[in-house]
Amino acid sequence: MVISNGVADHPVIFVRGNMITNNQIKEITALRDKSKARKEAGLYIVEGPKMCEEAPKNMVVNTFVTHKCLESNHSWLDGREYELVEERVFEKLSDTKTPQGILSVLKQPQYSLKDMLSQGELYVILEDIQDPGNLGTIIRTAEAAGVAGIIMTKGCVDIFNPKTIRSTMGPIYRVPFVYVEDIAQAINTVKQAGVAVYAAHLKGESYYDDINYGRAAFLIGNEGNGLKEETAALADTYIKIPMEGKVESLNAAVATSILMYEHNRQHRKA
Amino acid sequence: MVISNGVADHPVIFVRGNMITNNQIKEITALRDKSKARKEAGLYIVEGPKMCEEAPKNMVVNTFVTHKCLESNHSWLDGREYELVEERVFEKLSDTKTPQGILSVLKQPQYSLKDMLSQGELYVILEDIQDPGNLGTIIRTAEAAGVAGIIMTKGCVDIFNPKTIRSTMGPIYRVPFVYVEDIAQAINTVKQAGVAVYAAHLKGESYYDDINYGRAAFLIGNEGNGLKEETAALADTYIKIPMEGKVESLNAAVATSILMYEHNRQHRKA
Repeated sequence: MVISNGVADHPVIFVRGNMITNNQIKEITALRDKSKARKEAGLYIVEGPKMCEEAPKNMVVNTFVTHKCLESNHSWLDGREYELVEERVFEKLSDTKTPQGILSVLKQPQYSLKDMLSQGELYVILEDIQDPGNLGTIIRTAEAAGVAGIIMTKGCVDIFNPKTIRSTMGPIYRVPFVYVEDIAQAINTVKQAGVAVYAAHLKGESYYDDINYGRAAFLIGNEGNGLKEETAALADTYIKIPMEGKVESLNAAVATSILMYEHNRQHRKA
Repeated sequence: MVISNGVADHPVIFVRGNMITNNQIKEITALRDKSKARKEAGLYIVEGPKMCEEAPKNMVVNTFVTHKCLESNHSWLDGREYELVEERVFEKLSDTKTPQGILSVLKQPQYSLKDMLSQGELYVILEDIQDPGNLGTIIRTAEAAGVAGIIMTKGCVDIFNPKTIRSTMGPIYRVPFVYVEDIAQAINTVKQAGVAVYAAHLKGESYYDDINYGRAAFLIGNEGNGLKEETAALADTYIKIPMEGKVESLNAAVATSILMYEHNRQHRKA
């Protein structure tokens, strides 16, 4: 790849006194493509009118929008800062095959495990979840189930991966989450806060619906390998979801959802 | 595209007296890529040792395997018919970036709605489910929940799409399913068989866990649009799954899974 220098490096597309430079384009595509770039900058990207509109205003660093998108009545943009970019430029920025013509650069929110645990009935602890779609679906269901926090190992896929965001949508703005270095330490902190930890495990001694849940955290393992034995061993109780046929395991997002809803069902009936 | 004739059209790779021709390669890639080709031939493709090994023997039309794959101890292949192909040829056939070196061409199973309904407690009716991953996850959870049959509109994604198969895996061999031309007629047939039809619907008058389920079919709509009003109107009862926060709907596979497991939970507790 040739990186050119000088004027040609900065084809200027400017409206409202702003311009997007090749350097900015590189920064944005790095935020889109690289977890490391996102971590270092503490930023991430969301695309589409719905996600840009729902974005918490105080977290928005910049918004890029095409003329065509701007024409289609996005009155919520009034009074907000944005930069107009050409279609061909937007295509470079976008992660999708059919770009919707608007994206925002956002600050990553910071949550603390301690705050999360200070109140709340329901938690999810995820070990090494790899599939962005699964993580996104878990976060979406977690908001619907009123989860107070999601705790993830560093081995989980980046929550700010564009694929995760696409399957999560708005809930990414609202469900508190933390990545933890040390899962054993985090589980101990959860337990010390008076939250019982349940590991979804094939060796579960109790069916998931035979437990009387109080404040609970469900511990869910990697899609292919399940929970590591040493992680599972930290749980208060192993539980299992009954399975007929020859199915060896449920999809991680499905298992998490069934458990969260059983917890809530009991609390609603109680 | 130029279609060449003559000898050059048939670069021969043969072992065990068999050979794979360019025409066969074209047929297989068509089965892989085109729902129409699959329908016309009544065939589909599965990839990987696990899927090929689990395939019902009487449905296997052909199996293609690379030398390298064959060397890694697949004793289940003993006594089965297969054709050896070169790595570079297999790469053309494969749907994946890192091919596992084995695929089978299978006959599509045929199920009848009537047979499905003759016995069984639990059914799923899917309207225009578009995402192959969602459909695959529903089929996998359906086997685990002992579902007697899945009824799909023609507007649903093709169950034999390689992406659906990858997220379904073995359950595709075991869960009965039908595609129906006329969803209204199919729902009537379900009801006449004594199976109550529940539509998952935002306007649901009952929570999903306030119903006493007997033989039940859950009617699930398209990911983006939900159920069409005229389809929902055919249900016996609208049910809703409670949602907190600002979530507008659950993922289709998650919603289906929660409903199937609630049905089974009640039956296990009864």
